[in-house]
Amino acid sequence: MTFKEVVNSRRAINFFDPEKSVSKEDLKSILEMAAKAPSSFNLQPWSVMVIDGKEDKETLRKLAWNQPKITEAPLTLIVLADQDGWKEGHPFVEKNFQEMIKSGTMQEAQREWFKGAREGLYGSTPERKLAFAVKNAAFFAMTLMLAAKSLGIETHPMDGFDMDKVKQAFKIPDTYWVPLLIAVGYFKKGETLMPAKWRKSPEELIVRFD
Amino acid sequence: MTFKEVVNSRRAINFFDPEKSVSKEDLKSILEMAAKAPSSFNLQPWSVMVIDGKEDKETLRKLAWNQPKITEAPLTLIVLADQDGWKEGHPFVEKNFQEMIKSGTMQEAQREWFKGAREGLYGSTPERKLAFAVKNAAFFAMTLMLAAKSLGIETHPMDGFDMDKVKQAFKIPDTYWVPLLIAVGYFKKGETLMPAKWRKSPEELIVRFD
Repeated sequence: MTFKEVVNSRRAINFFDPEKSVSKEDLKSILEMAAKAPSSFNLQPWSVMVIDGKEDKETLRKLAWNQPKITEAPLTLIVLADQDGWKEGHPFVEKNFQEMIKSGTMQEAQREWFKGAREGLYGSTPERKLAFAVKNAAFFAMTLMLAAKSLGIETHPMDGFDMDKVKQAFKIPDTYWVPLLIAVGYFKKGETLMPAKWRKSPEELIVRFD
Repeated sequence: MTFKEVVNSRRAINFFDPEKSVSKEDLKSILEMAAKAPSSFNLQPWSVMVIDGKEDKETLRKLAWNQPKITEAPLTLIVLADQDGWKEGHPFVEKNFQEMIKSGTMQEAQREWFKGAREGLYGSTPERKLAFAVKNAAFFAMTLMLAAKSLGIETHPMDGFDMDKVKQAFKIPDTYWVPLLIAVGYFKKGETLMPAKWRKSPEELIVRFD
């Protein structure tokens, strides 16, 4: 599929075929494509929990407005946004820095500059920590939904869940925000999709305030 | 280009050809594809300012770590995330509701339910307002960067700017968060791209806490 076909055909699907699972290979391909999303200083403050066991799915469904797609889809991803993913000493921050040194895009002498830049942009207020984590995790999640569609696999991004209870049930540390859940699977044959929803036009999208 | 080619070849470009502008038609196509991004209840709390005038570009560059790409790229988008984009009475919230009634996906009788759902999920705390706005605007921005690449147009997402001063200079109302700037244009021939940066593997992406 061309990019435009993927973008135009991706829809939030309510009807998943409970009999058709997503193969490990496809999930791996989807994650690999999603991981190509850009992030702030390549910090990639995102990760996912794969909820595919019967009991876990039932637990999650109860905490997510009892949405049937959570138990019907073969798997649901809990997308995690790491509000500490900019901090000095964080394993992936250090790995990222070492990888940049290896590739020649940064030098050890820039450690203090890099630390200061991250602290100023992402760590200076609670709002900035949250925005940093959520923005980057959303880049990842958006790419993931398109990547799935490019393989013929459907998704449904969900906001309707009790974040605090989901964090408690799945022992998710406090530092993570959960920006969304994504049901992943195949469209159930015989069901009918509603027409695509209205979207803002370019004229509605472009603004000025003077 | 296939989706995978777009995802794999999209890079944050530092070298834009200052002589090559982005046509109005291409910008329109990019915005139309980006607008297909999903959003919370289809609320689409995103918009953009197109910064393409000499004076505006110089103003923005000064407030964005003096990054040369802002004056070199034919245009830079200021991406806006509307923290009020869930509120009853907001013009686009009302338009969205009316469009859902028209298409039969919601009924007038659901107005109060819909209002309560939005207030609970997006309006109940300052954190939720911010996360709602930033997440959705990031879905839009991510789709926009991929859409541009699918037309052979390069982008560079930027965090290095003084948000408060940018808001002041461009008279952006307080309700907006500015999650990023995106330089848009064509790659300058003769320049060399660094190799693509390290990314987390599927094994690094998938987590559990029990």
